[in-house]
Amino acid sequence: MQTPWEYRYAHRTQKMGSSIIRELLKLTEQPDIISFAGGLPAPDVFPVKEFQNACNEVLQNQGASALQYSTTEGYLPLREMIARHNARFSVQVAADNIMITSGSQQALDFIGRLFLNRGDYIIVESPTYLGALQAWNAYGAQYISVPSDEHGMIVDKLEEALRIGPKFIYILPNFQNPSGSTLSLERRKRLIVLADQYGVPIVEDDPYGQLRYEGEHIPSVATLDSRYRNEKNEEYTGNVIYLSTFSKLLAPGLRLAWVVAPPQVVRKLVMTKQAADLHTSSFIQYVAHEVAKGGFLDEHVKVIRATYKERRDVMLEMMDEMFPEEVRWTRPHGGMFLWGVLPEHIDAAEVLKVALDRKVAFVPGTAFHPNGGGKNTMRLNFSFSSPDVIREGITRLGLTLKEALKNGH
Amino acid sequence: MQTPWEYRYAHRTQKMGSSIIRELLKLTEQPDIISFAGGLPAPDVFPVKEFQNACNEVLQNQGASALQYSTTEGYLPLREMIARHNARFSVQVAADNIMITSGSQQALDFIGRLFLNRGDYIIVESPTYLGALQAWNAYGAQYISVPSDEHGMIVDKLEEALRIGPKFIYILPNFQNPSGSTLSLERRKRLIVLADQYGVPIVEDDPYGQLRYEGEHIPSVATLDSRYRNEKNEEYTGNVIYLSTFSKLLAPGLRLAWVVAPPQVVRKLVMTKQAADLHTSSFIQYVAHEVAKGGFLDEHVKVIRATYKERRDVMLEMMDEMFPEEVRWTRPHGGMFLWGVLPEHIDAAEVLKVALDRKVAFVPGTAFHPNGGGKNTMRLNFSFSSPDVIREGITRLGLTLKEALKNGH
Repeated sequence: MQTPWEYRYAHRTQKMGSSIIRELLKLTEQPDIISFAGGLPAPDVFPVKEFQNACNEVLQNQGASALQYSTTEGYLPLREMIARHNARFSVQVAADNIMITSGSQQALDFIGRLFLNRGDYIIVESPTYLGALQAWNAYGAQYISVPSDEHGMIVDKLEEALRIGPKFIYILPNFQNPSGSTLSLERRKRLIVLADQYGVPIVEDDPYGQLRYEGEHIPSVATLDSRYRNEKNEEYTGNVIYLSTFSKLLAPGLRLAWVVAPPQVVRKLVMTKQAADLHTSSFIQYVAHEVAKGGFLDEHVKVIRATYKERRDVMLEMMDEMFPEEVRWTRPHGGMFLWGVLPEHIDAAEVLKVALDRKVAFVPGTAFHPNGGGKNTMRLNFSFSSPDVIREGITRLGLTLKEALKNGH
Repeated sequence: MQTPWEYRYAHRTQKMGSSIIRELLKLTEQPDIISFAGGLPAPDVFPVKEFQNACNEVLQNQGASALQYSTTEGYLPLREMIARHNARFSVQVAADNIMITSGSQQALDFIGRLFLNRGDYIIVESPTYLGALQAWNAYGAQYISVPSDEHGMIVDKLEEALRIGPKFIYILPNFQNPSGSTLSLERRKRLIVLADQYGVPIVEDDPYGQLRYEGEHIPSVATLDSRYRNEKNEEYTGNVIYLSTFSKLLAPGLRLAWVVAPPQVVRKLVMTKQAADLHTSSFIQYVAHEVAKGGFLDEHVKVIRATYKERRDVMLEMMDEMFPEEVRWTRPHGGMFLWGVLPEHIDAAEVLKVALDRKVAFVPGTAFHPNGGGKNTMRLNFSFSSPDVIREGITRLGLTLKEALKNGH
């Protein structure tokens, strides 16, 4: 007889499944479509030559250890390098504060696994990152959405949310995915004080922090927390779990990221990872270390910034020219995404269907709202397509939007 | 104030923690110790040169896609290659039957996540693989241990266990970790009939299937299941989820393995993996495909077999010579491990403490018994150490055992 598989799955899988949005997004992957829907870095900036040299170097000199099993927390020279890097761009930490993960998605998953009981609440920005919701839905999370504006989460509304008793606060402070907004310094400071007061940890997700195209770098939430606590040691022991990644600085196909946390939390994360996949590929860790160890990232990030800044500027210019005036959008200071708001009565998912006929795509904003809303919003990616493709795509999308507004849906 | 982290962890983390065994095993990692405790392949057989060529080839010709995000199910040419490979060494399958994982540990984790509610029962061999227990403990699994002998699980005792209503049966049929035993053809056939009769799936974990040093290859449980169902299609739609890995054929530091399952189960596993880590490193998948695509594995596995067979033989010879006659052990036909049984009153963990003073190590067998027992058993790895090191290590261990038997602990 056929095995009755569907009766054997666990409760937690019942929320898993294909959504309307996911089905629509599959259509955006057709090769003739100009897609602003994905979240892909530009392959033009991948440092292919540097990877080639690093692979040769690692295999020639460290082949036996780079191909062998290794420790769950990650390759020590890589963790030490990240600690130095992190001290410059985020908070001062020691190697014991760092665990290597297979991409930031894995860090989000492990945080869910370590902290979440079914039904636990998480405070998120509205809108928030879809991948985090996917990771935490598997653990039965519920969400408290705090509204945000062009300066990020409206922290004045945070205290009310904190009184509900959430497990943690999740925030993307720099060039947020999806909205492109950046949390202001003032709000960051208020955030850490409130979180400390209620004893609620903050998960700070910072994949794009170094991809700033204008304005001044704002200290990370973890740094501000460390200063607030007047920490004097090399080790960080505060209230923030900080995530960052090599996906945007080197290449996402590596699946290489890191999580920064107090050592006691890192030890728990290491046990979690040991049961989940033993460790992240030793070879990938050795190669990334070899590519980055001589200060390459500092040079390379300049190339990425120049490339993405041009694309952002082209997209914004074309939107000014082509989009109907009833549509508003963010002007992000960095990152890979911007956010459009249509008139309230327009459904972005309906607009997408028409856009797909015109061979252009974006992500309708509902997917980023765990508690509903955002039907009239849309996320556009500007990092992946070349300036010419952006021009053509925004022209098509402008025509689609004008038509949608005329037809009133 | 300090954040009260320990009060914020989820229920599922409460079983996590350091065990006495794990603390002892840390000691085995000291560099001057001859360790038969690990489960490491011999680095001498890693095909370093082939990896170097493959990295250069992939980066020169496919750099942009090998470094980019890719699909969750895995790189299609790799899955197609595995399907062909699998048809020869295990069951006939299509690419839709296959998902790539970051090592088999991740496949074990995903199977737990997909199937296990807290308190669910799993049928395991006694002893069974420690990593599977670690993965499934996180989901609150309970275990029904079925005893095994030199021909694997004693399938006559299986029906009683099936009547308890387990979620699935977990079995390592070839050169089992830890015992080194191989499930006989007759027992395999009886296993699949019983599992089908009760509608209970089988998880077949087969990392060592091709590492046979004597005797004839026995068809996999999945193959026998497919034959029993008289399957005519290319796709496999039976009752077995089959796991295998590149860790033992190429190198474990890649973290590259695969799971074979009916397409409907693969689709669920893909959703699980998407939330957990998006996908396994594209670069690693392209490189492994490049190394293996021209039939390299068939040649390379001969080198591995010759190397490990010699080491197994040396270990067995030395044990014959050096071990006290009260100790018994398995003579595995393949794989990486053998299993020692001491007189009932001897505690292998106590023996390990003395062995560590003599600078030699093994794993005490209790760790492989989820429901207790096995205090007088031990696992020895023969793949990692060179023949000379094995001779010296078994000499030291023989002296330790003689002493322990004399002292009676």
